Amino acid sequence: MISDLMSAADTPSPTDPALANDRRVELGLDRPIRLDCGVELASVTVAYSTYGQLNADRSNAILICHALTGDHYVADPHPITGKPGWWADLVGPGRLLDTDRYFLICSNVLGGCMGTTGPADIDPATGRPWGLSFPVITIGDMVEVQARLIDHLGIGQLFCVIGGSMGGMQVLEWAHSHPDRVFAAIPIASAARHSAQNIAFNEVGRQAIMADPDWCDGDYQSHGLRPKRGLAVARMAAHITYLSEPALHQKFGRNLQNRDRFTYGFDADFQVESYLRHQGSTFVDRFDANSYLFITRAMDYFDLAAENGGVLANAFRGTRTRFCVVSFSSDWLFPTPESRAVVHALNAVAANVSFVEIRSDKGHDAFLLDEPEFHATLAGFLDGAAAHRGLPPSTGQRRYGR
Amino acid sequence: MISDLMSAADTPSPTDPALANDRRVELGLDRPIRLDCGVELASVTVAYSTYGQLNADRSNAILICHALTGDHYVADPHPITGKPGWWADLVGPGRLLDTDRYFLICSNVLGGCMGTTGPADIDPATGRPWGLSFPVITIGDMVEVQARLIDHLGIGQLFCVIGGSMGGMQVLEWAHSHPDRVFAAIPIASAARHSAQNIAFNEVGRQAIMADPDWCDGDYQSHGLRPKRGLAVARMAAHITYLSEPALHQKFGRNLQNRDRFTYGFDADFQVESYLRHQGSTFVDRFDANSYLFITRAMDYFDLAAENGGVLANAFRGTRTRFCVVSFSSDWLFPTPESRAVVHALNAVAANVSFVEIRSDKGHDAFLLDEPEFHATLAGFLDGAAAHRGLPPSTGQRRYGR
Repeated sequence: MISDLMSAADTPSPTDPALANDRRVELGLDRPIRLDCGVELASVTVAYSTYGQLNADRSNAILICHALTGDHYVADPHPITGKPGWWADLVGPGRLLDTDRYFLICSNVLGGCMGTTGPADIDPATGRPWGLSFPVITIGDMVEVQARLIDHLGIGQLFCVIGGSMGGMQVLEWAHSHPDRVFAAIPIASAARHSAQNIAFNEVGRQAIMADPDWCDGDYQSHGLRPKRGLAVARMAAHITYLSEPALHQKFGRNLQNRDRFTYGFDADFQVESYLRHQGSTFVDRFDANSYLFITRAMDYFDLAAENGGVLANAFRGTRTRFCVVSFSSDWLFPTPESRAVVHALNAVAANVSFVEIRSDKGHDAFLLDEPEFHATLAGFLDGAAAHRGLPPSTGQRRYGR
Repeated sequence: MISDLMSAADTPSPTDPALANDRRVELGLDRPIRLDCGVELASVTVAYSTYGQLNADRSNAILICHALTGDHYVADPHPITGKPGWWADLVGPGRLLDTDRYFLICSNVLGGCMGTTGPADIDPATGRPWGLSFPVITIGDMVEVQARLIDHLGIGQLFCVIGGSMGGMQVLEWAHSHPDRVFAAIPIASAARHSAQNIAFNEVGRQAIMADPDWCDGDYQSHGLRPKRGLAVARMAAHITYLSEPALHQKFGRNLQNRDRFTYGFDADFQVESYLRHQGSTFVDRFDANSYLFITRAMDYFDLAAENGGVLANAFRGTRTRFCVVSFSSDWLFPTPESRAVVHALNAVAANVSFVEIRSDKGHDAFLLDEPEFHATLAGFLDGAAAHRGLPPSTGQRRYGR
């Protein structure tokens, strides 16, 4: 099965048979999902993928949490873009997230736009798209829906919860709100609260979307429109924050599209302009503008310390989870001090925690890229945690990269 | 005169008599202004202010160069916002830019929107606003127009050229293209070329403007419209880059507008959101969207090394100008390494240069704010340069701040 998926990833296509792995389940029918804002959802559809086999004692499950604009196509080609999954290099037999050893689960977050209930879906109460009437969700709500999925899959305790950026926020929320269900936790390039600067960047993106007349006060679906221009600007602004200045300098510098000279106009003279425009224009094909509003809002609201009497350590008191906290030296969106604050809180409650700042010039996006030291760190931690959990050791040669 | 101005600044009003200092001159009538793009402008109107008196041997003139969204209201209240001039605290008798000693000149840049010829003005060839048909200008073109103004004022050599951010680019351009006309040069929080990241941020701003349907392909004046929403988003994105993350954290942190709780909506829950929205909405009242396009483009194109065979030192070979290069430790838009590159180039040609990195947590905007160490650095350099130039020493007590 997995080898089919991986070979399929080499020749991605929107009609790829690998998408048979793209599952849907309706959760909450037995017990409504009460959100932090007070609204109750009678049910939620969750889109998810799994890889590998759950073992007999259900102890080998890893939940992978995706970032703001990610989805559950973690290893399969994306049905819209046809591009390989966002962690395709890490998932497979003998790979870091070894499908011969682990049962991997990744679901599209609540509020998303790739199959899980979100603002683009139909509100059963009105028969029309939710739009802005969708309830404002939190990272905690996303995790609650994931917990229902884990229940549905018959898993008590996850061997590991792993994710980068907003995925890392979900990891921390899992360790806080379901401590007994998380044997190991790997928050990567993340934080226990969203900073003022990050809220500011999110707000710029939201204002760009809302400034687009095609947004129609959030009701663009009813008008057969999509705020493509505003969403593209939001993506462009955000994309800068995912890269480091050195990475932009090395990748593009001041290189011109036309090598000879300036055009003395407003076309994309510089390669970095062309790159950004491409990032913006391709993003709008695969992402819903209202989902962008709701998910960025969830990130803004995230603040584990504030929810725990202003003391982050309180969020993890009594934890028995093993933590591996990872940051990247050139990440200025979720800089190392944010991860260090998590580590200090975990140390304060005598948690089992290892912390690594990976030297990288790739900025925040490093968690999605080929970073050997990062991957070696994950491998070492997972092997150690697996041994403690009593999982059989890896067989055969470890495969890295493409 | 000056004391009138300064007291007037305490009670600013759009009809302030101090605006008698807001002068206009038409330049180029004798000799057209040939721009770097190849276009010739038959004449250019320049809006400027002066403070203090030119001395008998015309040796005490200081040219102040403004930044991207600045103007020549350096010490006078702004005619639209009514706010004090952007360096009002620095200008006046006994102040850092001492109007008892120096003759200060500040002009609105070519392409600007506060009186100097720019895209919002009428193209004499068509009788309609230039809009996007305005020629794409460069920092060199801005300096050429300033040089014509200095000619008009009967000044051969400027005692000093000073400016921050894009103003610092003009300072460096002056020192490069008119070395004999600049006795001392103070580029602050600046760079000899715009970085890939800064081009990227500028491009986001331009795309935000161009995404606004009210921009009308640059022809919004003909339609009686203004792309306010797009320009506000551009300003919001740029404004984040003017501040440091610590400054945002200290000023706003995650403080809520409504102290009690989240609203679970998209109003400005966080104070930092409200602040950004205010920055965006007030900016559109005083700035022209097309000017924003043209001036950001001029910054993007600036690259003194590229214009000099790829070697920055070549730009300053043989210079006799005295330089004081200033950066701020928390400025991530024009970080210290950019200033250091200028200093290295100046050292390579044995120029007279002092370099100070001011420790500040205020980010790029520090050059506009009350930073005592910064002001002391400027005072020391100016006093020393004035002595070398044979200007009489300061009389009386130095006054700082408000």
